[in-house]
Amino acid sequence: MRIALSTGGGDAPGLTAVIRAAVLTAIGRGWEVLGVKRGFAGLLGEDDVVSMTRDSVRGIAHLGGTILGTTNRGNPFKWPKRQPDGSFLELDRSGEIIVNARQMGLDALIVIGGDGTLAIADNLADKGLRVVGVPKTIDNDVAGTVTTFGFDTAVNTALEAIDRLHTTAASHDRVMVLEVMGRHAGFIALHSGLAGTADVILIPEIPFQLSNVCDKIIARGKAGRHFSIVVVAEGAAPKGGEEATMGPSMPGQDRRVGGVATRIAYEIQQATGKETRSMVLGHLQRGGMPTGYDRLLATRFGGAAVRAVEQQRWGHMVALQSPHIVTIPIKDALREPKRVDPSHDLVQTARQIGVSFGD
Amino acid sequence: MRIALSTGGGDAPGLTAVIRAAVLTAIGRGWEVLGVKRGFAGLLGEDDVVSMTRDSVRGIAHLGGTILGTTNRGNPFKWPKRQPDGSFLELDRSGEIIVNARQMGLDALIVIGGDGTLAIADNLADKGLRVVGVPKTIDNDVAGTVTTFGFDTAVNTALEAIDRLHTTAASHDRVMVLEVMGRHAGFIALHSGLAGTADVILIPEIPFQLSNVCDKIIARGKAGRHFSIVVVAEGAAPKGGEEATMGPSMPGQDRRVGGVATRIAYEIQQATGKETRSMVLGHLQRGGMPTGYDRLLATRFGGAAVRAVEQQRWGHMVALQSPHIVTIPIKDALREPKRVDPSHDLVQTARQIGVSFGD
Amino acid sequence: MRIALSTGGGDAPGLTAVIRAAVLTAIGRGWEVLGVKRGFAGLLGEDDVVSMTRDSVRGIAHLGGTILGTTNRGNPFKWPKRQPDGSFLELDRSGEIIVNARQMGLDALIVIGGDGTLAIADNLADKGLRVVGVPKTIDNDVAGTVTTFGFDTAVNTALEAIDRLHTTAASHDRVMVLEVMGRHAGFIALHSGLAGTADVILIPEIPFQLSNVCDKIIARGKAGRHFSIVVVAEGAAPKGGEEATMGPSMPGQDRRVGGVATRIAYEIQQATGKETRSMVLGHLQRGGMPTGYDRLLATRFGGAAVRAVEQQRWGHMVALQSPHIVTIPIKDALREPKRVDPSHDLVQTARQIGVSFGD
Amino acid sequence: MRIALSTGGGDAPGLTAVIRAAVLTAIGRGWEVLGVKRGFAGLLGEDDVVSMTRDSVRGIAHLGGTILGTTNRGNPFKWPKRQPDGSFLELDRSGEIIVNARQMGLDALIVIGGDGTLAIADNLADKGLRVVGVPKTIDNDVAGTVTTFGFDTAVNTALEAIDRLHTTAASHDRVMVLEVMGRHAGFIALHSGLAGTADVILIPEIPFQLSNVCDKIIARGKAGRHFSIVVVAEGAAPKGGEEATMGPSMPGQDRRVGGVATRIAYEIQQATGKETRSMVLGHLQRGGMPTGYDRLLATRFGGAAVRAVEQQRWGHMVALQSPHIVTIPIKDALREPKRVDPSHDLVQTARQIGVSFGD
Repeated sequence: MRIALSTGGGDAPGLTAVIRAAVLTAIGRGWEVLGVKRGFAGLLGEDDVVSMTRDSVRGIAHLGGTILGTTNRGNPFKWPKRQPDGSFLELDRSGEIIVNARQMGLDALIVIGGDGTLAIADNLADKGLRVVGVPKTIDNDVAGTVTTFGFDTAVNTALEAIDRLHTTAASHDRVMVLEVMGRHAGFIALHSGLAGTADVILIPEIPFQLSNVCDKIIARGKAGRHFSIVVVAEGAAPKGGEEATMGPSMPGQDRRVGGVATRIAYEIQQATGKETRSMVLGHLQRGGMPTGYDRLLATRFGGAAVRAVEQQRWGHMVALQSPHIVTIPIKDALREPKRVDPSHDLVQTARQIGVSFGD
Repeated sequence: MRIALSTGGGDAPGLTAVIRAAVLTAIGRGWEVLGVKRGFAGLLGEDDVVSMTRDSVRGIAHLGGTILGTTNRGNPFKWPKRQPDGSFLELDRSGEIIVNARQMGLDALIVIGGDGTLAIADNLADKGLRVVGVPKTIDNDVAGTVTTFGFDTAVNTALEAIDRLHTTAASHDRVMVLEVMGRHAGFIALHSGLAGTADVILIPEIPFQLSNVCDKIIARGKAGRHFSIVVVAEGAAPKGGEEATMGPSMPGQDRRVGGVATRIAYEIQQATGKETRSMVLGHLQRGGMPTGYDRLLATRFGGAAVRAVEQQRWGHMVALQSPHIVTIPIKDALREPKRVDPSHDLVQTARQIGVSFGD
Repeated sequence: MRIALSTGGGDAPGLTAVIRAAVLTAIGRGWEVLGVKRGFAGLLGEDDVVSMTRDSVRGIAHLGGTILGTTNRGNPFKWPKRQPDGSFLELDRSGEIIVNARQMGLDALIVIGGDGTLAIADNLADKGLRVVGVPKTIDNDVAGTVTTFGFDTAVNTALEAIDRLHTTAASHDRVMVLEVMGRHAGFIALHSGLAGTADVILIPEIPFQLSNVCDKIIARGKAGRHFSIVVVAEGAAPKGGEEATMGPSMPGQDRRVGGVATRIAYEIQQATGKETRSMVLGHLQRGGMPTGYDRLLATRFGGAAVRAVEQQRWGHMVALQSPHIVTIPIKDALREPKRVDPSHDLVQTARQIGVSFGD
Repeated sequence: MRIALSTGGGDAPGLTAVIRAAVLTAIGRGWEVLGVKRGFAGLLGEDDVVSMTRDSVRGIAHLGGTILGTTNRGNPFKWPKRQPDGSFLELDRSGEIIVNARQMGLDALIVIGGDGTLAIADNLADKGLRVVGVPKTIDNDVAGTVTTFGFDTAVNTALEAIDRLHTTAASHDRVMVLEVMGRHAGFIALHSGLAGTADVILIPEIPFQLSNVCDKIIARGKAGRHFSIVVVAEGAAPKGGEEATMGPSMPGQDRRVGGVATRIAYEIQQATGKETRSMVLGHLQRGGMPTGYDRLLATRFGGAAVRAVEQQRWGHMVALQSPHIVTIPIKDALREPKRVDPSHDLVQTARQIGVSFGD
């Protein structure tokens, strides 16, 4: 047996542990393992394919980052090709991948990636490539699995930031607005905010009104709590037409800079008169050593992916359905995106202890 | 409504977050909340019952420890009473608890504890006390819940120790034996050992042979890896009659001191000739700030316990059945203890990547 | 003896340990200790003065923040008074402080603050107030002391961020620009950047040219290192007239938002074509638990301040002149500000191992 | 120029940063750098000498451990040689080292080690070898330098343990005894204990009486503080003849196991009746990622060592005399060992805030 590993999209804490476990498990079965560098580009002849040995994966499980490189360079079904006039044409190069995989003598490909990468993997499986998927999303927005590696580390990184902001907010009677990852799903904001006893949590799934946020802050002041912590997912958005009024109110503000936290902080300060500061956590959430939870889950995913290859579960991905790792059809996982359910006990508990979602 | 909170047994990271969430949720419903200090003793008139307010639980969720005190002092069904001759008699004082609860005007009691405490709570429920349980075990040995608060923190504490020992073991070509908690269940050893890429993991559920452990260490040396990491649960035990030979082989060794890790380290050094050191992690695993996972789970448990009171789920405990918090009869949870299943994918994955369980 | 403690300016990790040590040392001598809330305002009748007991300072040494509140509200020599037309008049209310201190029966005042607060303390000492100072600056910009509490914590916080960005930068072939504190002094950037193996460090004391920064990044790429880490102090500035060209080049950019890191990242991406991201560490550097170094130094400062009162070292401040804590006249410390010396071995070592300062 | 690096003794957090900085600084000067593996044995033909390049030291500064291996195998002036009868003879093989260094074309040797290794380096310098030293001691027991790398990391590791024990001690009304490193010098115990608000600190430099320790614990109980934290250096010893009574009082206790903390805990529990637990921190203090302080100091030492070679400071070692790195004759540093001065402000401050040293 000869298998290959490929990763797509950004790095995630635990990615190296997936690779290590998959390589060691496959080698333990006497298989040969290749590492495809830089995503699908590596299968289109643009980059190296390297041999993966025990030595390749020594001492890497506790490190962040990836040893295969990552890429957002493209979808082989719509591969960008620059035209003479500078514009891009989209080519379907998926057939080349099938051919290349055959020429490389690959018996199977393990693809580690988020919903975009998994969708491509599924399409390649439909065309006959023997593919098994491993879900990878820091935002926790892939369905069919309780969670995936990287999410726990990101939550703890955000939580540590909340703890730090808490002491300085309380000392200075300030409102601190922390922006965390989550363009479409608010899990990081919800989990870290609730664990960190934030006063306000704003997520994409629950549109907010700034007046409600300010009311909460003012009410706290009346109760003798002169500081507040607001945790906001990058994709959180105000209700209805409110956004139109949010944007321009901060003079000279460029949307790309600072994002939603900066604007919300500005509005809160204007409306409440309280000194308000914002902080964008950004790339800190992707880096660093993975937590125990993530290292373990990643290790289980890596081992399970090789077993799924053995069982010829093509077009399936590994998933956590506590306490077991299972395999499910990638199509099932991608049927609809995973989002925070506003009726989930997490939201319910948060509301009951006084957290405002701004709605 | 007037409810009371009581904790039993040792502290666990996240305990304060349970108390905070329960108090805030109950107060949010307009209920009155009492805190019973020092376990069931507090309901037997031996200690204070205090009023719990918003101020009682401010700024405590991220702290370790407990604000209600803890106790192993006793089972009200078998309460120890010292006799004039110094011996102890066991009295059934459970009736007093029922009476005292009525006199205090308690509508319900939330009991936070491990399997021993939960069994007592269940017996009190059978006698008519309106009790709801919250499982508390660092060892993860209560059934019916995927995990409970404190376990994730303990795993990460153990993992951090493994990481530290790893660098020094590799630098010095040493074998390091780390003893972690787990008298009956090896979850902490298994999770931290697998996440920390330990070479040998010894747990109560899989009796080991020292010769197998030594073989693994020797095989690593032949492959050019001159150090090894052994993670051992405090309750791990050798197969069959081997223990008899383990004990006395170390001159002057007292069982209470150093425990299983010390003895294993001694034996490994004798058998392999490799410099071997042991370390008992002990109380470090109970202390410190809870992780995000534990703070969140604890907060959910606290809120869910109050909702369970509202729904009159007497004799039930809250439990995590991912992704939901549910309530289950305490009796169901206690039917059999939770142990590592040697056929679980965690053990399987560990074996596949080369971990030895010594069996 | 009756003494009072007052803090000025922002919080700093270790501040609570100073207060704890001073209170316990003074109480140990049989003195009475008062805590003045919210800086000099507290001595102008605007806020409370509280009694400080052993209980006031229990369990606070490891926490961040301050228990006395902080303030930038004002200089008693130029106290802002709002006029009917909305403008502010500056009043000299220093005399009131002298009178109030006498009426409160204060034998001495310990003032904990940065250079601004210490200058006021010195002026009050000149007017006869019995004052002892404790230097407080995260930026390490007070002369006469090797370092002060909070700086080590801030360096470690910045270093942890660099470590995290390092893994993600290396995985994605990115340039990461991290902005750390340091409006006038580049110590945090220099220490964290050198410890974190940054490739470029930009500090106020060494004006930079962006072209040099880009050259360094390009040279690394040619040597096969496709990522780079740039650490920049918030006060770092380009040489000569370059700033004029930096500002406007980013459309819609507001100076207050994102600051120097955002602009530098934009310029680097434009000039090198490499994907470049920026991150402003901001308030994270002030919060959180102090490191061992800071807790210890703070404790020593607190104890030494009380001994300085005993020795009637009015107008002096405590200072670290390793390995001893000494007292020096505040005037000597303030004579000139402390800045990174470009000929210091730190800068020399950094240059020798290949760090670019952009000059 | 061709230089070599050699390390002796145990690893210390920061060791890799010394090596990295020395290698990069030397290569930057166009020098060739060799790495001698496993201490002086590597210069006696027993092990490899490897070429050190930029690639050898990439990405290692933040890691613990060492990349050159370490050794306690021996003193080349008294090199152990096994005799046919199994006994060992000591040979003076120092001459071989001089010869080998010449044959290898070495222009200088940088030796990184503790007082034992530095003494050998100095003796080799006396015989004509061109040697520069870098002090390495976690215990901080080398004179002539304010501190050295590894010490700050060890203090923070100990402090983190104290913080964890604190929460569990307070929750359970227990006495916790933590044993930290320090066979001859109590710096780690003093610094971590004072920073961690320990109640009792026992160090080799201040012989203790157990009765005083117990008095302190009892006095705390009377003041309503029912737990206590005792930090003890491994080399702390009771006054005069007390040890004779300490040892045998614990039945079956082997001196090598558990050490001083176990015995003290036993005695405290016997004398005070309070539940007492001990913990030996051991090897955790050597491992793990170095703190910012240690990474920086190590980097400065590495750079300064190469500059010292350039300046031909043979027989000198680099040292921190804050805020500068200097070079001093190794002989001066070794004249007398560095110990905690009982009249130092650290001890004075500790006593003033109520810490007992048991004397």
